[in-house]
Amino acid sequence: MEKKVFHELLPFDSALKLLLENFKEKVSYPLSSETIPVKDVLNRVTAEPVFARISSPYFHSSAMDGYAVRAKSTFSATEKDPVKLEIGKEAIWIETGDPLPEDFDAVIPVEEVNVYENYIEIYKAYPPYHDVRPVGEDIVATELIIPENHFIRPVDIGAMLASGILKIKVRKKPIAGIIPTGSELIEPERIEERALKPPALIEYNSSVLANLIKEDGGEPKVYPIAKDEEKDIEKSILKACEECDLILLNAGSGYGKEDFTYKVLNKIGEVIINGVAIKPGKPFIAGFVENKPVLGIPGYPVSAYICYHLFVKPLVEMYLGAKLRRVEKIQATLSRGISSGMGVDEFLRVKVGKVGDKYIVSPVGRGAGLLMSVVRADGYVVIPSGSEGYSQGQTVDVYLWKSKEEIDNTIVCIGSHDNTLDILYNYLRKKYPHISFSSAHVGSMGGLIAIK
Amino acid sequence: MEKKVFHELLPFDSALKLLLENFKEKVSYPLSSETIPVKDVLNRVTAEPVFARISSPYFHSSAMDGYAVRAKSTFSATEKDPVKLEIGKEAIWIETGDPLPEDFDAVIPVEEVNVYENYIEIYKAYPPYHDVRPVGEDIVATELIIPENHFIRPVDIGAMLASGILKIKVRKKPIAGIIPTGSELIEPERIEERALKPPALIEYNSSVLANLIKEDGGEPKVYPIAKDEEKDIEKSILKACEECDLILLNAGSGYGKEDFTYKVLNKIGEVIINGVAIKPGKPFIAGFVENKPVLGIPGYPVSAYICYHLFVKPLVEMYLGAKLRRVEKIQATLSRGISSGMGVDEFLRVKVGKVGDKYIVSPVGRGAGLLMSVVRADGYVVIPSGSEGYSQGQTVDVYLWKSKEEIDNTIVCIGSHDNTLDILYNYLRKKYPHISFSSAHVGSMGGLIAIK
Repeated sequence: MEKKVFHELLPFDSALKLLLENFKEKVSYPLSSETIPVKDVLNRVTAEPVFARISSPYFHSSAMDGYAVRAKSTFSATEKDPVKLEIGKEAIWIETGDPLPEDFDAVIPVEEVNVYENYIEIYKAYPPYHDVRPVGEDIVATELIIPENHFIRPVDIGAMLASGILKIKVRKKPIAGIIPTGSELIEPERIEERALKPPALIEYNSSVLANLIKEDGGEPKVYPIAKDEEKDIEKSILKACEECDLILLNAGSGYGKEDFTYKVLNKIGEVIINGVAIKPGKPFIAGFVENKPVLGIPGYPVSAYICYHLFVKPLVEMYLGAKLRRVEKIQATLSRGISSGMGVDEFLRVKVGKVGDKYIVSPVGRGAGLLMSVVRADGYVVIPSGSEGYSQGQTVDVYLWKSKEEIDNTIVCIGSHDNTLDILYNYLRKKYPHISFSSAHVGSMGGLIAIK
Repeated sequence: MEKKVFHELLPFDSALKLLLENFKEKVSYPLSSETIPVKDVLNRVTAEPVFARISSPYFHSSAMDGYAVRAKSTFSATEKDPVKLEIGKEAIWIETGDPLPEDFDAVIPVEEVNVYENYIEIYKAYPPYHDVRPVGEDIVATELIIPENHFIRPVDIGAMLASGILKIKVRKKPIAGIIPTGSELIEPERIEERALKPPALIEYNSSVLANLIKEDGGEPKVYPIAKDEEKDIEKSILKACEECDLILLNAGSGYGKEDFTYKVLNKIGEVIINGVAIKPGKPFIAGFVENKPVLGIPGYPVSAYICYHLFVKPLVEMYLGAKLRRVEKIQATLSRGISSGMGVDEFLRVKVGKVGDKYIVSPVGRGAGLLMSVVRADGYVVIPSGSEGYSQGQTVDVYLWKSKEEIDNTIVCIGSHDNTLDILYNYLRKKYPHISFSSAHVGSMGGLIAIK
């Protein structure tokens, strides 16, 4: 057995480009459509443009509560010399939304007139269409209401119903098959029925991936855990390829004796990416089996999370035909220097806080196994492959996992870890739900340096 | 009958304060909890802090594929004078995640050794815990994972499962009863079975409100349309008060002959707000019936939409015990002046586009009946009650309904309306889903002024 030599890793940009090019070539996208009632289309993507069927309003209607009149009958009215109009004949009571009576063309709001027994008095001239909502004021029949490839919001649903649209074509949800692999993995539910003993590991990545897919408008389908055996993995992939649009294999994408993703993909399909120069997430694999993309997502939870955002999200977008919302980006000052190896794009989880009117950013744990570094982070900073890192005080782009408002309402604490802070955080959150507490555990020296 | 005099409208700030004060006094909040499986908690709010039950990892495990060794046996190794360790006795093959064999304390990655028939050769000293993930590296049993009052994200689900948490207490969803009122209203579904004839109006506000509630983590319950009759409205409110946490009555909050919200609320409960100095949304009513908040939402679709954001959202937040995500705010330059009446806070829908490195903002239709002004808007600008408006070229805060990235990818077009633009927009969107097209129809003069 020889000293193992690593093949060359693809730079991130090239890897993503290669994946998307192959996808465009091999896969039929966006997904086909299904017709569903407009009431159920929230957050779905339109598969065709939606044009109005009925104008809104579809008749001239009153914009106010008051009296419908003929505008010309008011032209001579002044404060000094008011015009009297007979109720029921020249002036007809009308409420907001009511159709304008035939032959009438203006509405005078009730608060602008004086009402007497059988007539009203008005004190100025009103032009035609005064306080009238003309046909099509909001929506004209045949006009484009919603374009294709659009994520549907509550207000879009209102506009479609208002214009008489009851069913529309939306894209089918991309079905993402998630196959957890690893002989040592057990489903979380099973730790109740048997004591957890090494080497058993709780399988939780599939739940993270499934919920990310759900958030992005896809439909997750989690398969039973596959054993670290070629046959088992091959069977799972082939089954998932029949039932899904996109297959995520987690993990087994590394170079260990029990990492079969590469081998199996090479056998039943085609590998196009085997390792990417990113940290975390290096052992990412991508291939196609029966023209379905199969992605080997690394097993470390942070690697899986980062690979989802870098590689899975873009494919979900291709299937949906619409861009998913990206995270907000702000500029912040580094509280301390960070070094990073050349040749890899590093995705560094960070805490952000507002100190005075500046955003201060501090890196948190870098290990790919530290899921809590994602849970506790406010966002991430990218150290590009051409850089050896950043120095203290440098301004960097931060991609936020929280809203800027949340960051503004965050109390920042940098220093050694103290469990009391956890308790404090919870009390704070209980009493003031809008306040967050962000503690970066960097040791007391780190805290002192940050103050400088 | 006298000229109708309007009572004094409450300023927006006072109205919201009054509503929240009354809510805090009368309503028991946040809502009680329910225990559900962690796999189903996405976007729910934690009702208690979540502490880890099991450490992760819960045994010392290898961080790499390689050989487990005793660190002290490597101390004398150098490139020139390598140390030989017997495979199976002094060096044991180990894969990422495997438990460290008893009595071993370090891991050497496979790519750093040379492997011979029954021994490995190593070329430097390794400290204890080298490439070992110690117990609790990610999560230590008993530590706080997620605080109370937190919207649960996919990554939080992972952390909970990793630490052996299978069920948690989350807040019940606030149930919002939505009662459409108006004798002229018909359910959208019914326009198929009968021709639409004036004065019949399609009822669509309830779908907009229901979907807004859904997005915000509540559960909508839409009641049948109530007639413009006191008895019918009273019955609907009382029924909804039994079944819901929050009741939205739409419309009937104005001052017309068929507007009964005020009268009914005054009879069966207590009115605390009757009209607010906002535009649109003026005839907003709030009251409490049997200690449940009942809000009279104006009937115009834009008024309803604005009132939802100003008054309903804060109550949903109180019930959930957590802050909802707020829209992003940017600064932009006005393409033309806007005047606004003193004494009202006006919420003006706008289009935003990036021209060079400046964001340019143009107001769109102001009418409260123009739902399409919301559909087509990129966000809104507030003209506060103390201001008569803004002048061309002034910098204003814009609250975005889209992401900044979407705005950056928007082609701006200001001028007269041309239906060809709609068609163009749809083609654009079909081919380049990430590009938006924003046309503000201000007439050709408006377009020319904007260029200046």
